[in-house]
Amino acid sequence: MTDQMKRIALARRPEGVPAPQDFSIETMDIPAIKAGEVLVRVSCLSLDPYMRGRMSDAPSYAPSVDLGATMTGQGVGRVVASKADGFAVGDLVTGMTGWADHAVLPAAELRKLPEDIPESTALGVLGMPGFTAWTGLRKYGLPKAGETLVVASATGPVGSMVGQLAKAAGLRTIAIAGGPEKCALAVETFGFDAAIDHKAHDDAASLRAAIAAATPDGVDIYWENVGGKVLEAVMPLMNVGGRIPVCGMIAWYNGAEAGDKLPLIWRSVLTKRLSVNGLIIFDHWDDFPDFLSDVAPKVAAGDIAYLEDIAHGLDDMPQTFISMLTGGNTGKQIVKL
Amino acid sequence: MTDQMKRIALARRPEGVPAPQDFSIETMDIPAIKAGEVLVRVSCLSLDPYMRGRMSDAPSYAPSVDLGATMTGQGVGRVVASKADGFAVGDLVTGMTGWADHAVLPAAELRKLPEDIPESTALGVLGMPGFTAWTGLRKYGLPKAGETLVVASATGPVGSMVGQLAKAAGLRTIAIAGGPEKCALAVETFGFDAAIDHKAHDDAASLRAAIAAATPDGVDIYWENVGGKVLEAVMPLMNVGGRIPVCGMIAWYNGAEAGDKLPLIWRSVLTKRLSVNGLIIFDHWDDFPDFLSDVAPKVAAGDIAYLEDIAHGLDDMPQTFISMLTGGNTGKQIVKL
Repeated sequence: MTDQMKRIALARRPEGVPAPQDFSIETMDIPAIKAGEVLVRVSCLSLDPYMRGRMSDAPSYAPSVDLGATMTGQGVGRVVASKADGFAVGDLVTGMTGWADHAVLPAAELRKLPEDIPESTALGVLGMPGFTAWTGLRKYGLPKAGETLVVASATGPVGSMVGQLAKAAGLRTIAIAGGPEKCALAVETFGFDAAIDHKAHDDAASLRAAIAAATPDGVDIYWENVGGKVLEAVMPLMNVGGRIPVCGMIAWYNGAEAGDKLPLIWRSVLTKRLSVNGLIIFDHWDDFPDFLSDVAPKVAAGDIAYLEDIAHGLDDMPQTFISMLTGGNTGKQIVKL
Repeated sequence: MTDQMKRIALARRPEGVPAPQDFSIETMDIPAIKAGEVLVRVSCLSLDPYMRGRMSDAPSYAPSVDLGATMTGQGVGRVVASKADGFAVGDLVTGMTGWADHAVLPAAELRKLPEDIPESTALGVLGMPGFTAWTGLRKYGLPKAGETLVVASATGPVGSMVGQLAKAAGLRTIAIAGGPEKCALAVETFGFDAAIDHKAHDDAASLRAAIAAATPDGVDIYWENVGGKVLEAVMPLMNVGGRIPVCGMIAWYNGAEAGDKLPLIWRSVLTKRLSVNGLIIFDHWDDFPDFLSDVAPKVAAGDIAYLEDIAHGLDDMPQTFISMLTGGNTGKQIVKL
């Protein structure tokens, strides 16, 4: 057993697209392991888009990697030394090893892997990306047979899983991918019903026309991995009651167009795990009797205040409406005849 | 009983802010009523921001008003003639009378009102605006005692109801309103804990600082009535797991800044009643065993396809990462050591 290890540290914070100079490759002594810890020799490491966020010191859902610290990331490897119950030398494990060829981790942060499935699947289809697809579709996508799903980054580890799970649930699945090879892959390997090459469309309007042609019944679920042009293209095609699990926005990870206010808003939806719901009251009339029986007594009792702005006569009604649109009224605008 | 009525018709489609010339005031004969219909003399009419949308012929959640047709809207009045069971002359009723002093409506589209509550409440606190507040808060706001709610257009008929219902549920309630008088009203009449005058802030950053000062624990629910500057200001203040019922976007009803992509997206959320949910997989680890037991057998059986893009060695890892961010990989990016 060697007593040296190699790791990649974050040397400086990238601006826009990261550059090789933002990283430093370092050799160091393997730390001594303490009680409850395990030393893993890493055989496989994962690279995932979320890592770009960790390189930035902008506030996000997870702390950024400190300058000089090992880049964060999941790895698979074998135990080479253990001071923890339940882990023996030779065990195949996975955990947040970082970008390094060895890692010392508390046993509680490691998970043992079966030997009968390729070890790299723990980083992909049976790891975080696959789990992301499965969870997001189940909790937020709410797929129903016969509906239409559009997936951005459809040949990626998340998108390809979303497509397959939705297809198995009886949905029509449409892939958005970059280039003819990925489009072929989406249909042939991942079973999408159709694939659209976003690189063949310079603007959102042209991409939208292509997606519209492939989604004659509209879009019920848009799985959001990218933001940018694809989001703009898909949004007007959504059906009433559609669902958008927001899983990533890789188009904006390296920065957005100056003056574009959308990335700030959309990024907050992701990083804050917001639940944003369009409300059109005409969908909810069935609940009106419940509302009245709850609220009418409170209004009658004076427990709920209300304010009316009373105008008079039909003739001035257009002007009253115009004024209301710019905040000219105070309270509910009523016109008495 | 007169045999003439007066109505306001849509004369042309407004561009931007409506003008009086977009409407025409007309006198006409009261239509004869048929079996099952009721003639109502209108005493009170409602004016609501949603009406601006009906004046446009852009596709929306409801059909636009035809040119030459009576402007749509809810009214209250008394029955002056009835050919319908259950409605007698003198009954106080409400329905979609349109902007007119008389209306002939099918009985099924009318609702009788009690005589002991002011009739205009059927258009406001006990009508569509109040019902909107009650429904949206209950279904999408999901208020919990101790949380913080921010409401745009807080002294309007929807916002003032949202604030009072949330306050009664034990939330800290913050009003956004236009001008010192409305701010005073929000606190004194509607019981908001604080009110912020958006007119006192020229840009979103300045408004955000004021809201942040009033929301030391962040924002759990943002009730969206306006879009524009307020949305931009509030969004970064949202807490993890926050909820945004999107009820309106009056700031953009008369058009948006050229090149601003946000209104298109946000408008779709409203008009299509979308459910948009941020997904960060690190919140969901408890479900990981369920995922593995569902999906691992399918992967082992070859029922789920997956694709890996294998790179080799730690030294090239930064470059591999950079390439992945721009779509250079195909399938899950793995680095083998």
